[in-house]
Amino acid sequence: MSPGQAPTSSESSTTGTQSVTLVRARFAETDQMGVVHHSVYPIWFEVGRVEWMRERGMSYREMEDSGLSLAVSRLEVVYRSAAYFDDQVAVVSQMTEARSRLVAFAYRLERYPDGELIATGRTVHVPTDRSGRAVRMPERWRAALEELAEVQG
Amino acid sequence: MSPGQAPTSSESSTTGTQSVTLVRARFAETDQMGVVHHSVYPIWFEVGRVEWMRERGMSYREMEDSGLSLAVSRLEVVYRSAAYFDDQVAVVSQMTEARSRLVAFAYRLERYPDGELIATGRTVHVPTDRSGRAVRMPERWRAALEELAEVQG
Amino acid sequence: MSPGQAPTSSESSTTGTQSVTLVRARFAETDQMGVVHHSVYPIWFEVGRVEWMRERGMSYREMEDSGLSLAVSRLEVVYRSAAYFDDQVAVVSQMTEARSRLVAFAYRLERYPDGELIATGRTVHVPTDRSGRAVRMPERWRAALEELAEVQG
Amino acid sequence: MSPGQAPTSSESSTTGTQSVTLVRARFAETDQMGVVHHSVYPIWFEVGRVEWMRERGMSYREMEDSGLSLAVSRLEVVYRSAAYFDDQVAVVSQMTEARSRLVAFAYRLERYPDGELIATGRTVHVPTDRSGRAVRMPERWRAALEELAEVQG
Repeated sequence: MSPGQAPTSSESSTTGTQSVTLVRARFAETDQMGVVHHSVYPIWFEVGRVEWMRERGMSYREMEDSGLSLAVSRLEVVYRSAAYFDDQVAVVSQMTEARSRLVAFAYRLERYPDGELIATGRTVHVPTDRSGRAVRMPERWRAALEELAEVQG
Repeated sequence: MSPGQAPTSSESSTTGTQSVTLVRARFAETDQMGVVHHSVYPIWFEVGRVEWMRERGMSYREMEDSGLSLAVSRLEVVYRSAAYFDDQVAVVSQMTEARSRLVAFAYRLERYPDGELIATGRTVHVPTDRSGRAVRMPERWRAALEELAEVQG
Repeated sequence: MSPGQAPTSSESSTTGTQSVTLVRARFAETDQMGVVHHSVYPIWFEVGRVEWMRERGMSYREMEDSGLSLAVSRLEVVYRSAAYFDDQVAVVSQMTEARSRLVAFAYRLERYPDGELIATGRTVHVPTDRSGRAVRMPERWRAALEELAEVQG
Repeated sequence: MSPGQAPTSSESSTTGTQSVTLVRARFAETDQMGVVHHSVYPIWFEVGRVEWMRERGMSYREMEDSGLSLAVSRLEVVYRSAAYFDDQVAVVSQMTEARSRLVAFAYRLERYPDGELIATGRTVHVPTDRSGRAVRMPERWRAALEELAEVQG
């Protein structure tokens, strides 16, 4: 999202292969340094990831209800500048990889509306069943994700 | 727990009908006012409640595994003085009521070791099954809690 | 907010003396009972309170920047029905009292859009300075809040 | 920490250049997959880092009070196996780098007492002043950290 570019809907917008979701930094998310605590960013990534899926017709809630989870196997965050209480933050999310046993997302957090980069990040996920065991992605979800992966490519 | 009175074990101690559990305020639990955020206290209450049960031979983990939960139906907190990063806080927990469809706990948070009162609180719980429906407490747990309730009385 | 009644703006809306703010339950906010953890509701109340103030021209961020905080001195929550991952929840907030040394808010959480009651709650606050000492509300904020209190009455 | 090896004190222990801190997984830290949410691990790393410093005579609280913070500039977590409610988890922390403008820590989370690896991780920090600007580490802290870095080497 370029500086000053508003999302097309209130909550989220799609630009090609990316989704942009706005979150507002909560008071509870700050720490005594006066900034949003670094452990909050993975939660915002998760919010962005869920919206990315929703915008492409995949409900993560339905996926969970069907017994499939995308367990996080790897997380990386690079912190660029602080986020402050009441800031609006654009979570720019993108699927970067989709295989039957691995899905990856990349993120950019930008202060809204000025576009200042707050952080970048990446998560890797493995499909798991209800008992937490790694599984091949069921056909229903695999097909949907592969199609999106092709669009990405 | 009186000021300066150390818990008898590292994590927790029992004094009659009360249990005392020490927690240390985490940096992530502070907010930009420089104090522990008020939403953290119910989490400390929960830690105290779980230890209260453990010390009386009831594992909340086993209770959950057996399909029974104690869903919170009511929460009250009175905030007396702030807790600060790195403070050790004694969570003094006590069961105040145990019926087949309702359990209640009371809490006191005290700065350790000086004993300054940080907060008092109370939670009310209803036994629920895996689907979240209110149920009568299964016999196994009811008997154990009633016995404790008699001791309390 | 009546069932099915949409907020007038994407984030929040004002109905007389109430503000309605939509939040979406995050995956990170759930617990192993499969519902939103009870300690999250006070955070949603806070989100609602901040929006209530914003809609009436009072920025809680500016209040904090000016050295005034509204420290929580009391919290009550009554839990009616569970909130689930991905639920949209309307936080209905209302100031119920405004004096120079005490401010109180009441809340209702309703599942959106069906309007099912999830919880009710109440917070009491004392104005404090940067060092956390209780203070009389500075004139600027007192006047604004009193005016709103009259509207409430 | 080898499987079954108890920490020498209740909260934490030092083995050469490592510190081992025990945390117990809280109910509030679980999610609806029935495991500890991935955003909790960075908070446990922080707990371990603070104890690592304390055991070497450096209070992070005093560092903060003196106006110096160690802002997180990078975070990496590799998730190996799930942590469950009520698990005791050993946070094995170690400083891996100490320069005047950068400090790094590495972590291992192990289920206690069986020693099963739950996660590994790494954080990089930059010294900042109260306004959040990157600064050279003040002499007092630099000397202490350098000495530890030599011990590490």
